[in-house]
Amino acid sequence: MTKTVVESKTKTAIIGFDQPFCVIGERINPTGRKKLAAELEAGDFSTVEKDAVAQVACGATILDVNAGVVYNSNPNPNETEPPLMTKMIELVQGLVDVPLCIDSSVPAALEAGLQACEGRPLLNSVTGEEDRLEFVLPLVKKYNVPVVAISNDDTGISEDPDVRFAVAKKIVERAADFGIPAHDIVVDPLVMPVGAMGTAGLQVFTLVRRLRDELGVNTTCGASNISFGLPNRHGINNAFLPMAMASGMTSAIMNPVALPVTQTKIAEKRAEVAARGVILPEDMDDETFVQLFGMGSTKPRPGGEMAAIRAANFLTDNDPSGAEWIRFNRAPAAPGEEGGRGRGGRSGGRRRRAG
Amino acid sequence: MTKTVVESKTKTAIIGFDQPFCVIGERINPTGRKKLAAELEAGDFSTVEKDAVAQVACGATILDVNAGVVYNSNPNPNETEPPLMTKMIELVQGLVDVPLCIDSSVPAALEAGLQACEGRPLLNSVTGEEDRLEFVLPLVKKYNVPVVAISNDDTGISEDPDVRFAVAKKIVERAADFGIPAHDIVVDPLVMPVGAMGTAGLQVFTLVRRLRDELGVNTTCGASNISFGLPNRHGINNAFLPMAMASGMTSAIMNPVALPVTQTKIAEKRAEVAARGVILPEDMDDETFVQLFGMGSTKPRPGGEMAAIRAANFLTDNDPSGAEWIRFNRAPAAPGEEGGRGRGGRSGGRRRRAG
Repeated sequence: MTKTVVESKTKTAIIGFDQPFCVIGERINPTGRKKLAAELEAGDFSTVEKDAVAQVACGATILDVNAGVVYNSNPNPNETEPPLMTKMIELVQGLVDVPLCIDSSVPAALEAGLQACEGRPLLNSVTGEEDRLEFVLPLVKKYNVPVVAISNDDTGISEDPDVRFAVAKKIVERAADFGIPAHDIVVDPLVMPVGAMGTAGLQVFTLVRRLRDELGVNTTCGASNISFGLPNRHGINNAFLPMAMASGMTSAIMNPVALPVTQTKIAEKRAEVAARGVILPEDMDDETFVQLFGMGSTKPRPGGEMAAIRAANFLTDNDPSGAEWIRFNRAPAAPGEEGGRGRGGRSGGRRRRAG
Repeated sequence: MTKTVVESKTKTAIIGFDQPFCVIGERINPTGRKKLAAELEAGDFSTVEKDAVAQVACGATILDVNAGVVYNSNPNPNETEPPLMTKMIELVQGLVDVPLCIDSSVPAALEAGLQACEGRPLLNSVTGEEDRLEFVLPLVKKYNVPVVAISNDDTGISEDPDVRFAVAKKIVERAADFGIPAHDIVVDPLVMPVGAMGTAGLQVFTLVRRLRDELGVNTTCGASNISFGLPNRHGINNAFLPMAMASGMTSAIMNPVALPVTQTKIAEKRAEVAARGVILPEDMDDETFVQLFGMGSTKPRPGGEMAAIRAANFLTDNDPSGAEWIRFNRAPAAPGEEGGRGRGGRSGGRRRRAG
């Protein structure tokens, strides 16, 4: 059975065919998050800290750390990203004990991350591009770490899954030339948005199966990409992840934390409640309000994807006797703590086991 | 591509590899429903009527009709079931226009159903038991209908999936001797509770794939059996169905309707609301109350399984351009009408398509 071992100083996360699905938290990443980028430029790491703690609390067993920010003061990421990566890695591994995934397109930032990181981090990523292969694979060998291999190459991202498989195969073979075993390569077969390409889901399911059966490698993906541009993205993601798992996918880079209820939603609901003639105690705080009105919580809690993954772990026989499922669905979540019932069902949380 | 054609007088439902998943509504069945059994014995068909309409409104494209009641006044189902089956079929096909699935273990009830049913119903079921094969297959041939084939035989239900596959193969071969084509056989590989057998999910996924690849048959199952005895059964079902679909399953016998909010739950919530110091208008009815407090609805609406199935239809490329997904997630449900957002996500229903 293929096993990819990822380690922090004190904790081991195993990605493997006979392991619970590995959730790699994606939130520590300023790409597309202007507010976070500005904070980082100003030396404010409070959001990074919150994201680290919340993701681990909600079930991430590895945290991705991406320092891909373009400063207003210095537009050259080759200069700014490596020291920021070092700082973020040191900060995160001081806060939480899970292994990390060093994520950058800047070579020097990958190396800075490898130097700063304790244990055996996952490197993210190599591709089939020649210069990338030539730079990253020696790093993988030198530091003896596992690596994410994305199945695009110098010709770009192919829409043909057979081409993407061939790129993955090329990377695995090239890695073997460096003495890197297949079990240290986690292939990302690339997930297209199903709204743009109807076969996107089927492509992933077929590719994951082939990658597992023919190359013996673990797999991962940027899971939420599947639902890009669609209404009710969580509904798509919640089905996609179990389907990918049934096809053999062993990890995903994703957000395990439910979107918090926004102040806008709370204001809208308070207005609706008032319009219905309901009178609230004047001092009712937002958290009490959103819980009472079934809106979720203002605090971090596991998203529906986590309930789906936990169910799929059970259904792939990677949750012996359903112990994790039962634990997850029984205990009401303490604030900031993992647990509580998922959003998939309504009455399950209070039900006793009948069988 | 294998297609099983099931028809009412006016409507066709196709079970097939390149079709949206076929939801066979299971609710018209007095087994384990004492109240319904008593109603039927008293000649009261109001629950049957409600179940028929609600299941079709929530997305069932075939309705299973089972008259398996044991009357207090007459304990012999061979006498009581056939006329009851006739009555129920006539009633249901007068109310809704979807094709029916005639479900009985009593041979005479199957034949009574076949005589009463317009169009081309699905017969439920034949097994690998010799007497059953010898009775049901000639009926299937005579009436030219498709049939559900359950993979147990005279030795019972095997826990070994290879044995269950062999039983299915035997039924398909025996049917061929009668001139019944494989595309008119819908195999139920039998779903065990995952709480009792950790490999139950994997067995189904593997069996479905083999049945499809090696025998070319459609498949179905009693889906909710997978979660028997576990907390948050919907959470398990909502993952199981997409996983089975990714493995090639093409239909399920299931309940498409969400459990209604019970009067007990409403009373509990009203007490909680009062204890929080909230003052409601005196005339607030239950439906307004449960909607305002995010409890769902007192009226029939699609269960979370339907959202999962619709997402999986999209992800198996059986929902061109996601038209059904978008429709399902956009429109708020009118009372008693299909639609509205599934329970899988929170904000999707109001979100406009971004991509």
